Amino acid sequence: MGGLREDLRDLLEAVRTGDTSPDDALDRLSELPYRDLGFARVDVHRELRQGAPEAILAEGKTPAQVAQIFAALLDGGAGSILATRADEAARSAVREVAPDAEEDELARCIWIARSVPEPRGLVAIVSAGTSDRPVVREATIRAELLGTTVAVHEDVGVAGVHRLASALPDLERADCVVVVAGMDGALASLVGGLARGPVIGVPTSVGYGSAHGGTTALNAMLASCAAGLAVVGIDDGLGAGTIAARIARGRE
Amino acid sequence: MGGLREDLRDLLEAVRTGDTSPDDALDRLSELPYRDLGFARVDVHRELRQGAPEAILAEGKTPAQVAQIFAALLDGGAGSILATRADEAARSAVREVAPDAEEDELARCIWIARSVPEPRGLVAIVSAGTSDRPVVREATIRAELLGTTVAVHEDVGVAGVHRLASALPDLERADCVVVVAGMDGALASLVGGLARGPVIGVPTSVGYGSAHGGTTALNAMLASCAAGLAVVGIDDGLGAGTIAARIARGRE
Amino acid sequence: MGGLREDLRDLLEAVRTGDTSPDDALDRLSELPYRDLGFARVDVHRELRQGAPEAILAEGKTPAQVAQIFAALLDGGAGSILATRADEAARSAVREVAPDAEEDELARCIWIARSVPEPRGLVAIVSAGTSDRPVVREATIRAELLGTTVAVHEDVGVAGVHRLASALPDLERADCVVVVAGMDGALASLVGGLARGPVIGVPTSVGYGSAHGGTTALNAMLASCAAGLAVVGIDDGLGAGTIAARIARGRE
Amino acid sequence: MGGLREDLRDLLEAVRTGDTSPDDALDRLSELPYRDLGFARVDVHRELRQGAPEAILAEGKTPAQVAQIFAALLDGGAGSILATRADEAARSAVREVAPDAEEDELARCIWIARSVPEPRGLVAIVSAGTSDRPVVREATIRAELLGTTVAVHEDVGVAGVHRLASALPDLERADCVVVVAGMDGALASLVGGLARGPVIGVPTSVGYGSAHGGTTALNAMLASCAAGLAVVGIDDGLGAGTIAARIARGRE
Amino acid sequence: MGGLREDLRDLLEAVRTGDTSPDDALDRLSELPYRDLGFARVDVHRELRQGAPEAILAEGKTPAQVAQIFAALLDGGAGSILATRADEAARSAVREVAPDAEEDELARCIWIARSVPEPRGLVAIVSAGTSDRPVVREATIRAELLGTTVAVHEDVGVAGVHRLASALPDLERADCVVVVAGMDGALASLVGGLARGPVIGVPTSVGYGSAHGGTTALNAMLASCAAGLAVVGIDDGLGAGTIAARIARGRE
Amino acid sequence: MGGLREDLRDLLEAVRTGDTSPDDALDRLSELPYRDLGFARVDVHRELRQGAPEAILAEGKTPAQVAQIFAALLDGGAGSILATRADEAARSAVREVAPDAEEDELARCIWIARSVPEPRGLVAIVSAGTSDRPVVREATIRAELLGTTVAVHEDVGVAGVHRLASALPDLERADCVVVVAGMDGALASLVGGLARGPVIGVPTSVGYGSAHGGTTALNAMLASCAAGLAVVGIDDGLGAGTIAARIARGRE
Amino acid sequence: MGGLREDLRDLLEAVRTGDTSPDDALDRLSELPYRDLGFARVDVHRELRQGAPEAILAEGKTPAQVAQIFAALLDGGAGSILATRADEAARSAVREVAPDAEEDELARCIWIARSVPEPRGLVAIVSAGTSDRPVVREATIRAELLGTTVAVHEDVGVAGVHRLASALPDLERADCVVVVAGMDGALASLVGGLARGPVIGVPTSVGYGSAHGGTTALNAMLASCAAGLAVVGIDDGLGAGTIAARIARGRE
Amino acid sequence: MGGLREDLRDLLEAVRTGDTSPDDALDRLSELPYRDLGFARVDVHRELRQGAPEAILAEGKTPAQVAQIFAALLDGGAGSILATRADEAARSAVREVAPDAEEDELARCIWIARSVPEPRGLVAIVSAGTSDRPVVREATIRAELLGTTVAVHEDVGVAGVHRLASALPDLERADCVVVVAGMDGALASLVGGLARGPVIGVPTSVGYGSAHGGTTALNAMLASCAAGLAVVGIDDGLGAGTIAARIARGRE
Repeated sequence: MGGLREDLRDLLEAVRTGDTSPDDALDRLSELPYRDLGFARVDVHRELRQGAPEAILAEGKTPAQVAQIFAALLDGGAGSILATRADEAARSAVREVAPDAEEDELARCIWIARSVPEPRGLVAIVSAGTSDRPVVREATIRAELLGTTVAVHEDVGVAGVHRLASALPDLERADCVVVVAGMDGALASLVGGLARGPVIGVPTSVGYGSAHGGTTALNAMLASCAAGLAVVGIDDGLGAGTIAARIARGRE
Repeated sequence: MGGLREDLRDLLEAVRTGDTSPDDALDRLSELPYRDLGFARVDVHRELRQGAPEAILAEGKTPAQVAQIFAALLDGGAGSILATRADEAARSAVREVAPDAEEDELARCIWIARSVPEPRGLVAIVSAGTSDRPVVREATIRAELLGTTVAVHEDVGVAGVHRLASALPDLERADCVVVVAGMDGALASLVGGLARGPVIGVPTSVGYGSAHGGTTALNAMLASCAAGLAVVGIDDGLGAGTIAARIARGRE
Repeated sequence: MGGLREDLRDLLEAVRTGDTSPDDALDRLSELPYRDLGFARVDVHRELRQGAPEAILAEGKTPAQVAQIFAALLDGGAGSILATRADEAARSAVREVAPDAEEDELARCIWIARSVPEPRGLVAIVSAGTSDRPVVREATIRAELLGTTVAVHEDVGVAGVHRLASALPDLERADCVVVVAGMDGALASLVGGLARGPVIGVPTSVGYGSAHGGTTALNAMLASCAAGLAVVGIDDGLGAGTIAARIARGRE
Repeated sequence: MGGLREDLRDLLEAVRTGDTSPDDALDRLSELPYRDLGFARVDVHRELRQGAPEAILAEGKTPAQVAQIFAALLDGGAGSILATRADEAARSAVREVAPDAEEDELARCIWIARSVPEPRGLVAIVSAGTSDRPVVREATIRAELLGTTVAVHEDVGVAGVHRLASALPDLERADCVVVVAGMDGALASLVGGLARGPVIGVPTSVGYGSAHGGTTALNAMLASCAAGLAVVGIDDGLGAGTIAARIARGRE
Repeated sequence: MGGLREDLRDLLEAVRTGDTSPDDALDRLSELPYRDLGFARVDVHRELRQGAPEAILAEGKTPAQVAQIFAALLDGGAGSILATRADEAARSAVREVAPDAEEDELARCIWIARSVPEPRGLVAIVSAGTSDRPVVREATIRAELLGTTVAVHEDVGVAGVHRLASALPDLERADCVVVVAGMDGALASLVGGLARGPVIGVPTSVGYGSAHGGTTALNAMLASCAAGLAVVGIDDGLGAGTIAARIARGRE
Repeated sequence: MGGLREDLRDLLEAVRTGDTSPDDALDRLSELPYRDLGFARVDVHRELRQGAPEAILAEGKTPAQVAQIFAALLDGGAGSILATRADEAARSAVREVAPDAEEDELARCIWIARSVPEPRGLVAIVSAGTSDRPVVREATIRAELLGTTVAVHEDVGVAGVHRLASALPDLERADCVVVVAGMDGALASLVGGLARGPVIGVPTSVGYGSAHGGTTALNAMLASCAAGLAVVGIDDGLGAGTIAARIARGRE
Repeated sequence: MGGLREDLRDLLEAVRTGDTSPDDALDRLSELPYRDLGFARVDVHRELRQGAPEAILAEGKTPAQVAQIFAALLDGGAGSILATRADEAARSAVREVAPDAEEDELARCIWIARSVPEPRGLVAIVSAGTSDRPVVREATIRAELLGTTVAVHEDVGVAGVHRLASALPDLERADCVVVVAGMDGALASLVGGLARGPVIGVPTSVGYGSAHGGTTALNAMLASCAAGLAVVGIDDGLGAGTIAARIARGRE
Repeated sequence: MGGLREDLRDLLEAVRTGDTSPDDALDRLSELPYRDLGFARVDVHRELRQGAPEAILAEGKTPAQVAQIFAALLDGGAGSILATRADEAARSAVREVAPDAEEDELARCIWIARSVPEPRGLVAIVSAGTSDRPVVREATIRAELLGTTVAVHEDVGVAGVHRLASALPDLERADCVVVVAGMDGALASLVGGLARGPVIGVPTSVGYGSAHGGTTALNAMLASCAAGLAVVGIDDGLGAGTIAARIARGRE
């Protein structure tokens, strides 16, 4: 909190010397309890330092709203911007205001990469099946924008467990492993027993009937006795990418 | 349905010859639509042939009721009798009426084995952890009373997966594999991929919090994409033992 | 596990005789822990022996993905291939790569039958109502591709219980009975009391309101006190067909 | 509503003749909108006519509260009084204030029968198993206190379906059939197809695991396609006895 | 069971007199356990006597299937036929095979009335709101086809409780009251306290958010302490109409 | 209840003086138990005094029904009319009968403001995100029609917590604060700790996966240990606007 | 926020005049962002002004912990202290440290009333049944400690609806009505239609089976179409008492 | 995987030179696919390197079983041993076999610390309330046994948010923050916005009614839009301590 403390000291010194009147100082101070309270300050600093992407959840917003927020962030900041769960209409509206935006149709993502920090650490992402790809892509995009290297191994569930073998070296050396799986979510338990580092599970809504839209995979991951496993929300590739990148980059 | 048909023919012949009056024949026939309808007949025949144990669910009954039913079956039939989920009070009441009954405290079972058919086929039972033992025991007792051989491999979950290796030969040669697992139920998916024959999963209420009393394991097993896996109710060792023995003994 | 053991012995003998250098042998052995571990080996052997169909869950995949996987399996294996829950778009894409594929619009299945083993055993499938037909068809297709004979009796629920009578001989002689029912799932309890062999219940999402998309039928089947009944996931005709065929074919 | 109308006319006539002052009349009238509004009036009339038992749900009340309410109803009315779900402590407290009260330990009921109307109609109660007896007893006591004849057939579930045969005549001639069943609740569907009159299902909390404390039986009964079946709450013998007696007695 | 008994006696007499050979008698008898077992016999008799409508649940069937079943029933029986939850496509297909069919677009019903018995008894149907009308209509159509008079009072929920006043006479004199309500289902509790006869609640899926598609109304009705109230499934106007008509017509 | 009492006294006095015959008086009185019972009377008085908007839930009604009810209220009352959850078709139908109606497309509301009372009190509405706007708008429209001032602060969730600072003065001086939030609903707990007056939470169905359509936010708000917080149903802007306005206007 | 602003101005003025050094001022200012941020400041001010009771949830804490917290609050503040859901052991431990504490065994509350503000406004609390009394008492104690008058009307549910009549004057004149009800929670809808001011519903866990531990009442209240109704958590008398008192006291 | 490869090369070389016969080599190799497959090897290596504590879930096991497993691990390994959710009976049994074991009554933990690695990294644990302490303790014990430093800040929920201020420096500098919270779980969202590193949420079963035994907190944390937050199961202090320590220690 040094920066704030020094600003305050300078201000008080200016009062003491008479350069600033108590009333002017008061005006600036009265904003402090909110403008500079913990959250806000940290957020701003983090963005300046890391170019952390602002994420916009497009679902539930009109295309016009998404584009408007995207444009505002484009103008007002230096970091990346990422809109998730954006259907074609939303992405099209964003393209109007940000013609250079990159896009992933499957992941329903559109983004501008700016000030992405030098990659640090390795995130390994493994998925159970082809249908989990949209979530895998969302997590990958997010993690890369936050400045980490991502190694992806898809379709390594029961039907393709031999592919898990080729993923093993990455599971061993990754700073964080992300497991994306729907249905019974069993891949998370399996990987949780194999990986050496922390594992983040992402239950997906893939599957029908007893998969209950991802709730079964979610509960199975949470109830897993595999040590070192934590979970984000159903289909939440964004959240997985975020925490995985933070773990992989480590304390900064 | 030959037996019934022949009985009927004999009866009709007796009417034709005058040995039986139409009225007497009618009295016997009027019971037929129910006493001899499919279900009842099959059940009785099966018991005579196989000594299939009658099972009494002790939970929800008073000790006196359990003992009374046990005694009635003891007198009225030739087959085995098995009371499940019987606490000490219920088992004690049964011992009064059946001093020779065998007992398993952990499984809360008490039983009399009678006319158990020559064992046929092999059922392999694997469990994820020590806490699953009561269910393993219930399934084992039931399957053996129905006349099959049971091979048990306990505690082969993630923490003890090396023990799964030693179970593998049994998984390969068993006519039916029963997987008993709580928490995330992932062992069923794993075994479902390893076993060659049909697999019956038994979710257990082992675990806390997100295990949701067995519902998580149940849903995970149902949502598993492992082929050849079917599931019985939570903690239902009795049901698992029954179907496994039927599969193992095959068509008779 | 004889096959593997013999392969290894041959390899070691070749090392001993100098026909193979330790380094070459090492390259082959180093793949063993994964390529040849239990699951993989069994799967490959089983496919060679039985022509077990590979199943592709089309739902959640793009038509292009389904077709691509279908084509890969067509090229890479000798066994049957079956895509389930494939809508018209997916099936159309598959027809592009596999013009000879058979199709069932109601069941949303498309498949190529190859190396289907000589049928063995009998699976009887009974359903409660006309609306259960897609699931009945999926189970039938799957079971037949695995090499078993299937006898189907549809619409034998409460409203058509007289039709159950005509199904009775099949219920009695089948090696495995599959009961497909939505709503209250009561048919499974009824058949569970009538059939002599193992019974597999398939709850369906047929019905509205209190049917809760199949959950009611599922729970009712699991809670049934009918002996010898196990259950697969909601609408999971594929799973039911798989385990039923394995039971019916018996140990091989 | 004749009685009320005549009372009012008498009152108004008394005002007209001067026997009653408007102010006195007003005092009596001002209570009318509530004391005599539909519900209250009907209830009072019904009790006078039928001796309808007041029911006290003892669960959630202290023994002292139960006894106090019981005593108040004993003093203040002419009809029967019935306390349900009363444990030994509650029943003991009631015995203090009502030494003549009848009791059923299994059903946890205690009651005083007064002014029970001449029985009319027949209610048949069938249950799936011995463990359902407490609910059967509660329904029976309630229905008899309301003035109807009750015929009970217990333990006629799958395991004892031959007993259902002997119940058939009662199912056919009853004015209302009550089915008490836990677990899969399938007996309600079965009886719903057999009985000719209206059927009331009572799901019970009997069973464990997938029985989900009666919810499974409840949903199965609601989702049943058996015509003419309606359901009361889990374990609600009181409610079943009430509606069954009303149906059996018919319009009065 | 007189009819069956007399048929049997005639048959046996014919055997005794030699008019029928034992073998011919046997052929007819051997069908009895199924063709004439309780359910079937009762059903057939009831239809002959009452012209009870056969109901077809159109949802989940293709339009062609619905029309085919409708046509089969039209040819094979004398009673009414009613298809429910039939969308425009299904109704259109039915019109092809039954041009005289009556229709209700809102209720999604299409039916042929035949041999409807002389109305007996009165069913009063009250609903909470305009949106409940489809269910009200389905119940009305069904009850009228079964031969009872129906009095409907719609939109008498909290916002229109004054309309409940005008319904009161019907609530008092009806043989059965049906309450159709979504959201909180409170109307059922209110009417349950007002009506003198049995009350059948129909929870509807009307409402959003916390109404949980009718589950809230369902549970509230089941948990209601109003005496004499039983419940059918969510949106199940068919079931409500059936049991209400049976109650209203009384024992026949 | 003075008004009713005085009416009654006048009526009785008229009987006493002979101005009204007992029979005429009786006719008027016989309607009292229903027409004038608490609810009805209060409602009518409130509307006259406050011009309280009648609200029509358009969802589940046909456009024609909505328009018909709207028109009836337009003719029959003096207060405002508000149709909620009205899609374009419903709003279009209303415009036919009420060309002057105001409309909000996002909120899916259409209304006529009449006799809106002089605003009293202040309601502050804060929302977590842009996607909550439809609910915010519905609550705002409703509260303003009831006669209160509304101050709106949107998008003050975690990502925009600095905006909460600028909302603080309104949170402090509002008579009632409404918090609209989906996902984790945490904003309600936060505001519940900041606001000095009563707080009404509105969980919204914004969010996916683990948000469970608003249930998560709902439960979180209910489980919050923030004092002075109560909750309305998911997405129920109408309910929130109503109670907030009543609190803000205070006792009248 | 005047107080804070003036404190700051004084501090700055002291810096300007040299009475305080910049460093000393800095030490005090550096605590501001947290110690004096909105929440904390408001809380402290409110307690000083209103003597708002600190509430301790005893459930989940050891008796020693409860007593320790109680004692700390007793020493450190001037306002009331209230421990809720405190069993005999917890209350006994509190009596050790606060011998003068008042107690309510049924409500499981123990408290010290200090600096309770002069009562303002009226809260009316109505409950459906005797079993709801613990929640009624908790709400009453809390509301009185916050400084408002409370009028209680218990047991006014369906069985005792005539008692609702006598409650009506209080419902009409109360500034806030609290409805405490379990089972179907219908009393909240009924009162919501009768009361003129805001209504707070408290679902209780009273009832069994389909009452689902209060969830049914909760959902019914939330889904109620009665205007002006908001809800607190199941059994949360504390929350209801808090918001009701805030509403009743109004803006201060 | 070098170690394995080298072992294999040595073995093959020995075969080539004749030091080992193919048969002896075969015996050793035949165990490889299982004994040395990924999971097992990694696990063993990790324990040797880190002294990772073996955790025993005591719940669901008899005291004798817990003690037996504890003793076996004590004899067979070099690392720490930790039994969780162990009641007094279980801990007492462990003390018999391990008199030196350390114990925490509140956390229901008993353990032996051995070969704990030199602490690396910092884990900050914050909790919402006093009742969360058992979970806090379990996480702390686990994390310390894994070799990391733990800083604990308890009771920093809404009621004690000023204490969050003093925790802020630790939140900023921790390598991983663990948030333990029940009820609404809002603290996780708040901390998720404040902390700079990855955050692990632990929902607890603290709270009653709408807290739904921790499910509400769990869902709220999963639905939180705070970036960088992942969650373990309800009350799973063990899991949280494990992943937090792995994150804090970083890649090794």
